Amino acid sequence: MNHSSIIYILGKLLQIEALIMLLPLFVSLIYREDDFLPFLITIALTGAVGTAISFKKPGKASFYAREGFVMVALGWIVMSVMGAVPFVLNGDIPNFTDAFFETVSGFTTTGSSILSDVESLSHASQFWRSLTHWIGGMGVFVFMLAVMPMAGAQNMHLMRSESPGPEVGKLVPRLKDTAKILYRLYFALTVLMFIILLITGMDGFDAVTVTFGTAGTGGFAIRNDSIASYSSLQQIIISVFMILFGFNFNFFYFLTFGKSLFDALKMEEIRVYLLIIAGSVVVIMINARACFESLFDAFRKSLFQVASIITTTGFATADFDLWPTLSKTVLVMLMFIGACAGSTGGGFKVSRVIILFKAFQKELEHFIHPRMVRNVHMNGRALKEETVDGVKVYLGAYIIIFVVSVLIVGYENHDLITNFTAVAATMNNIGPGLSMVGPTCNFAFFSPVSKYVLMFDMLAGRLELYPMLLLFAPTTWRSK
Amino acid sequence: MNHSSIIYILGKLLQIEALIMLLPLFVSLIYREDDFLPFLITIALTGAVGTAISFKKPGKASFYAREGFVMVALGWIVMSVMGAVPFVLNGDIPNFTDAFFETVSGFTTTGSSILSDVESLSHASQFWRSLTHWIGGMGVFVFMLAVMPMAGAQNMHLMRSESPGPEVGKLVPRLKDTAKILYRLYFALTVLMFIILLITGMDGFDAVTVTFGTAGTGGFAIRNDSIASYSSLQQIIISVFMILFGFNFNFFYFLTFGKSLFDALKMEEIRVYLLIIAGSVVVIMINARACFESLFDAFRKSLFQVASIITTTGFATADFDLWPTLSKTVLVMLMFIGACAGSTGGGFKVSRVIILFKAFQKELEHFIHPRMVRNVHMNGRALKEETVDGVKVYLGAYIIIFVVSVLIVGYENHDLITNFTAVAATMNNIGPGLSMVGPTCNFAFFSPVSKYVLMFDMLAGRLELYPMLLLFAPTTWRSK
Repeated sequence: MNHSSIIYILGKLLQIEALIMLLPLFVSLIYREDDFLPFLITIALTGAVGTAISFKKPGKASFYAREGFVMVALGWIVMSVMGAVPFVLNGDIPNFTDAFFETVSGFTTTGSSILSDVESLSHASQFWRSLTHWIGGMGVFVFMLAVMPMAGAQNMHLMRSESPGPEVGKLVPRLKDTAKILYRLYFALTVLMFIILLITGMDGFDAVTVTFGTAGTGGFAIRNDSIASYSSLQQIIISVFMILFGFNFNFFYFLTFGKSLFDALKMEEIRVYLLIIAGSVVVIMINARACFESLFDAFRKSLFQVASIITTTGFATADFDLWPTLSKTVLVMLMFIGACAGSTGGGFKVSRVIILFKAFQKELEHFIHPRMVRNVHMNGRALKEETVDGVKVYLGAYIIIFVVSVLIVGYENHDLITNFTAVAATMNNIGPGLSMVGPTCNFAFFSPVSKYVLMFDMLAGRLELYPMLLLFAPTTWRSK
Repeated sequence: MNHSSIIYILGKLLQIEALIMLLPLFVSLIYREDDFLPFLITIALTGAVGTAISFKKPGKASFYAREGFVMVALGWIVMSVMGAVPFVLNGDIPNFTDAFFETVSGFTTTGSSILSDVESLSHASQFWRSLTHWIGGMGVFVFMLAVMPMAGAQNMHLMRSESPGPEVGKLVPRLKDTAKILYRLYFALTVLMFIILLITGMDGFDAVTVTFGTAGTGGFAIRNDSIASYSSLQQIIISVFMILFGFNFNFFYFLTFGKSLFDALKMEEIRVYLLIIAGSVVVIMINARACFESLFDAFRKSLFQVASIITTTGFATADFDLWPTLSKTVLVMLMFIGACAGSTGGGFKVSRVIILFKAFQKELEHFIHPRMVRNVHMNGRALKEETVDGVKVYLGAYIIIFVVSVLIVGYENHDLITNFTAVAATMNNIGPGLSMVGPTCNFAFFSPVSKYVLMFDMLAGRLELYPMLLLFAPTTWRSK
């Protein structure tokens, strides 16, 4: 294990985090709130530690996939630990475990909260909480790649560990440029949404926090009723942007670099993703019609909730825990499917579902025509066998973590639906589940043990399982 | 598609079923009940149809995997249709859908019932209901292979479609001999259990029906409280035999052909299976201790329920729906794991779980040592890549059928736990689930649509998905 490189990069990461925290510090100045000092202390501490441990540049030691996975897992944990400090210091979340839970939930863009009264937080806390979503959405190592001069070998391993999806696609030959393009697109879409919300008359602070929560597909809101009290128009705009941030970002790259919308829409994943959304909205509109006031109300609430769940954002405009069983079943199914690969959303990812379906279809055909070649095609080209096999193993790993989590959380003796959807909502980075963790409830009642399990699940979900698994696998730490 | 061979074998199958139905006819004679005629009519009808369509021997047409799968799926459906007729004719289950449900549940060794009062059935009905478990347990085509002179080419395809597990193991070079050995072992174990139950003082009719239900890992009982009113000793004996019938039958073959118990226990699947049982019993004994009267009571009830669920039998001695959440979570997990491959039990099978775990472990190690070979070993030898891949695709297919079933059944607006465990209990051939399909309830309240979906799941589960999927896949019926 290449310890010196890992510690060096961790230090740089903390320096970046300290810089980013200047933003909430600035917010606290604007609103003249008394948590200026807590943020300043955290920034000083984070910056000092970061500088101290990254003082010595590492030698030219090798940096393999193993280092990449461990680095990313450690980075996200350390970043969350420091990110939790302001909440503890300013008294908004005095308990460290709870503050840590809230910050992990923020960075992983989960949006599960232990707070019952979000409105009582300071503006700086609210801003920082929402900002963690935005940072976690595209990934902090992708950001580092984009802005810092870094050696080439390690970049691929870091990018691979943090980017979601069955394949890591380079948009352009140089990885650094890919990272830059991704962040530029992310930034542009974010600004666009913010401006549109301002035009509809939304308050500036609301607009920026809601935009952060949408862009990162996070789900933290600054109102206790989540998004329900914003206007219909604003809700529909948020729905549309949730869906857009759930797109594979290659789509936007194609658009900006000259391809037509028609060509970009040829991406199989995008089409299936939109089809699932449309189908789910129709089913819920019909099935839960008794819960809605009018056809427009039905459309608005169904679209919002389907978009919110499949993109794993987790905003709510209705208490879907009261909807009929079929609608809830559809939502639970969407929880697992998740957004597109290469988006800011979580879950199993639409492309993995497609690959799994096709692999299975091929297997069926193989029974009938045993001599047929079993290549799985996507977007017109055959996928590497390794990719297809990776998806199948991913499913197995996913189920194992899921089952073990439900078993541990089960010890608390809450009902099965609570346990099952709490794990589903955290592992898929959604936020709310059903029953005791429904959209009107929160996660505060869980024991510390369960909270740490759910934090593990959030990180495992966001980093696509392997970094967290390898961090805790004995074989990782064994020297050759 | 080789229609003539399929029809011919279907005919032979019906002839065999008619012969088997002489047994309940005989029971009706003994007890001088008035359903002698209903059984006689069914036998005549089944025998006549069978003889008519198998009158003409088919030519030497080719018989491929496709024909094998379709044959087995059709055979099980036709057999269940005819098996339901006596229940309708003698008035015990006047509604055909319900009678069909009960018979499919019987043959697939599921044990889900639509009856609220089993004790009101005639002796012949009770006997026939339990006998379907015994026939379905080892498989009717395996029986045909054992007793009938059949061409060699088709045997492997039939055997492969009906036998559970990731690999079809031939015990001896000739498939016919393998089938004979399996049925001899099955018969011997059945007789042994029957005799032991008689020795404990159980009534003869109870002993034979309970033995059928245990041997086939079915779960139909002839008392309304299932197994709860039998003595402690009898319950423990039944527990042990449930576990034995969940063994991979290769184990018994090794024992009878000279291997020591120590050698036979080297089979990885058996050891993991016993370990899971022991672990689950301990967890439930501790977690649900408040539900038991004494340590012995805790052991007896936990062992019984764990054995009943993991072997997918479905007998009950306690209302486990009242146990705490962790215990219920463990039981739900066991529902999916299921018994050993090559046993009479259902579920995903222990060997598949092992293979999945190992493949996943290999994948993790591969990240760290990319040049390592990724062979999965079991029982000391490397598995074919095809086998490992087959398990992964099986998992995908399993999930797809599961999700679609839960969605369709969800339309009825029962609670999520009811829908989820109803599908889990039928697809894994267990019987009872939780909530509205708990051990003290039954499946009668479902709509006909849901009942047919659940019947599909039972057949899909028993025949390991592919025969039922191929029966309904358009590509199967397309000519080249």
